[in-house]
Amino acid sequence: MPGTIPALDVDTLITPHMSAAMSALKGPASLLNGMAEYHLGWVDSTFTPVPHGSNDKGKRIRPLLAMLCCEAAGGGADRAAPLAAALELLHNFTLVHDDIQDHSPTRRHRPTVWALWGNAQAINAGDALFAAAHLALLRLRDGGSDSGLILDLLEAFDRMTIDIVAGQVQDLSFETRRNVMPEDYVQMITGKTAAIVEYAAWAGAVLGGAKAEHASRFKEFGLALGLGFQIQDDLLGIWGTIAETGKAAADDIRRKKQSYPILLLRFAMNGDSIVELDQLYESAEIDIAGINRVLALLDEYHVRGQVEERVRFHHDQAKQALVLACPDEYNPARAILLNRIEALALRSS
Amino acid sequence: MPGTIPALDVDTLITPHMSAAMSALKGPASLLNGMAEYHLGWVDSTFTPVPHGSNDKGKRIRPLLAMLCCEAAGGGADRAAPLAAALELLHNFTLVHDDIQDHSPTRRHRPTVWALWGNAQAINAGDALFAAAHLALLRLRDGGSDSGLILDLLEAFDRMTIDIVAGQVQDLSFETRRNVMPEDYVQMITGKTAAIVEYAAWAGAVLGGAKAEHASRFKEFGLALGLGFQIQDDLLGIWGTIAETGKAAADDIRRKKQSYPILLLRFAMNGDSIVELDQLYESAEIDIAGINRVLALLDEYHVRGQVEERVRFHHDQAKQALVLACPDEYNPARAILLNRIEALALRSS
Repeated sequence: MPGTIPALDVDTLITPHMSAAMSALKGPASLLNGMAEYHLGWVDSTFTPVPHGSNDKGKRIRPLLAMLCCEAAGGGADRAAPLAAALELLHNFTLVHDDIQDHSPTRRHRPTVWALWGNAQAINAGDALFAAAHLALLRLRDGGSDSGLILDLLEAFDRMTIDIVAGQVQDLSFETRRNVMPEDYVQMITGKTAAIVEYAAWAGAVLGGAKAEHASRFKEFGLALGLGFQIQDDLLGIWGTIAETGKAAADDIRRKKQSYPILLLRFAMNGDSIVELDQLYESAEIDIAGINRVLALLDEYHVRGQVEERVRFHHDQAKQALVLACPDEYNPARAILLNRIEALALRSS
Repeated sequence: MPGTIPALDVDTLITPHMSAAMSALKGPASLLNGMAEYHLGWVDSTFTPVPHGSNDKGKRIRPLLAMLCCEAAGGGADRAAPLAAALELLHNFTLVHDDIQDHSPTRRHRPTVWALWGNAQAINAGDALFAAAHLALLRLRDGGSDSGLILDLLEAFDRMTIDIVAGQVQDLSFETRRNVMPEDYVQMITGKTAAIVEYAAWAGAVLGGAKAEHASRFKEFGLALGLGFQIQDDLLGIWGTIAETGKAAADDIRRKKQSYPILLLRFAMNGDSIVELDQLYESAEIDIAGINRVLALLDEYHVRGQVEERVRFHHDQAKQALVLACPDEYNPARAILLNRIEALALRSS
């Protein structure tokens, strides 16, 4: 039986593959490699290496998930390490471009790439990270995986990326629409957020030896997990406390994000109050009184309960799919994953 | 012996593969598919299909080259068609992002994607075209190519893309520098322009059956062809006539492009006149008198002759490499390619 992987080992397993893929960026354009390594938290803005451990590289949930699903399907975690590295690079490519698109000035407590080097160069940094993600995935060859299987994983990787991009297209277009339904939103996050989690679980299981039908259970698991994760995120964006999220309470209301709870509220409301809500969201800034008014409306329409129910629904689906995907209750990766689902369902940041 | 492919058949050979790869963009985000098809010249800005033949899809030099090199190496052109489609999609991905970075309002006589849908959505269109390029390349599987070979081509494809992006990083950073040497420029275009031509020739030959050393001759051919092509382009940007290029004479001076001739001039000059040149290029706009002054300086320092010599040098290199790559003088693809080199060397648009 393959050994379990504590969360702390993710870095050790994926860093060699990320570094090898990223080495393709080293060349005459030192700015390119510098921007990409800065975004990954490896160097500071002068391209000086950041001491290990002092930097914020993100939670690395996607690589962890890919490797755990590989174990749950019967393989060793290291077999999925190139895949895990590819997912981390792909996720970071999307973040670099998202930050440009959303004009976000900071990410992981540091200025974003575009804020330091401008939009034009930041586009290049994202493009190169996307190419490097493919190079990481191609390192599966060295692990002895079958060539045809690697080609299958590559094809699904690019299809999944198109789903992410399509989700981002929808998300941006929602900003100027007033008729977005809660289910439009769920469809959008199915691409933008959940597709990569779905792929991570599926591809990890495939590398662990899962065949078509078996792998599709892992896929269902990943999709449900990804949806639950995003909706829980939306819940915390409104009802999370500063202590829990590190952000001001009701931060998503302040930022006028059209997140799932707000769309549920809009759907439930009618008459005068929806005009009031529209006015608040169309104003240049929502002040404390406005935030409190939105919170009161969410209360009045019992939105929090509906959101919690939806999170629970997806987490239950995820659990059921995982138990079917990995019926062996003594599989240690399965136990970690089930604990993870609980932790995600109850998580506060 | 495989039949020759007249230039007109490129469309017929690559369109099915481009369409199949692009079909992955069809989904809930119809804007994504619409923007990408608009950029490719398949639909207008209302996403209505454009009648075949009436649209401008670009010259399609890269796909043609890949298929001719496949033939020159002994394969059938159709074997390289998925590769050719991938190159065309990749090239178009770089154009969509370049247009954002350069704030170019028009491309092929139509508004650019960002000019119609904004920078944020245009970034998405480019990202999706990049992913679709991989899907086109993966269609080599249906043609019965060996899986290991396809993986080799994919790895080189992503490395080449990183070279293009690195070239773009350099090109953008040159805009604010006054100390760019002519050889820095050649290094930049080696990535930005020539890398894809080099790859097209190499990968086409590999699919045609060329083994390592043989394929590397095609690679040399492609690199030399790409460099000669770009420098000839720079020459036409200054000395081409309206009749030849469809653009105003000396258009690159008007646009203050730091192209190869200008960098040669700067390198050759010293003292007072370089201050004069700097002033002209730092002014908001170069008027007719300024353009004529730059043309006179180019004359005085015999720059045109040097540029023509450099173009000839690369074209001679390309010819030599091709003759070594394909020694069979009766190979029809070789004859077309040799004619092409002549046409490119003498071309006026």
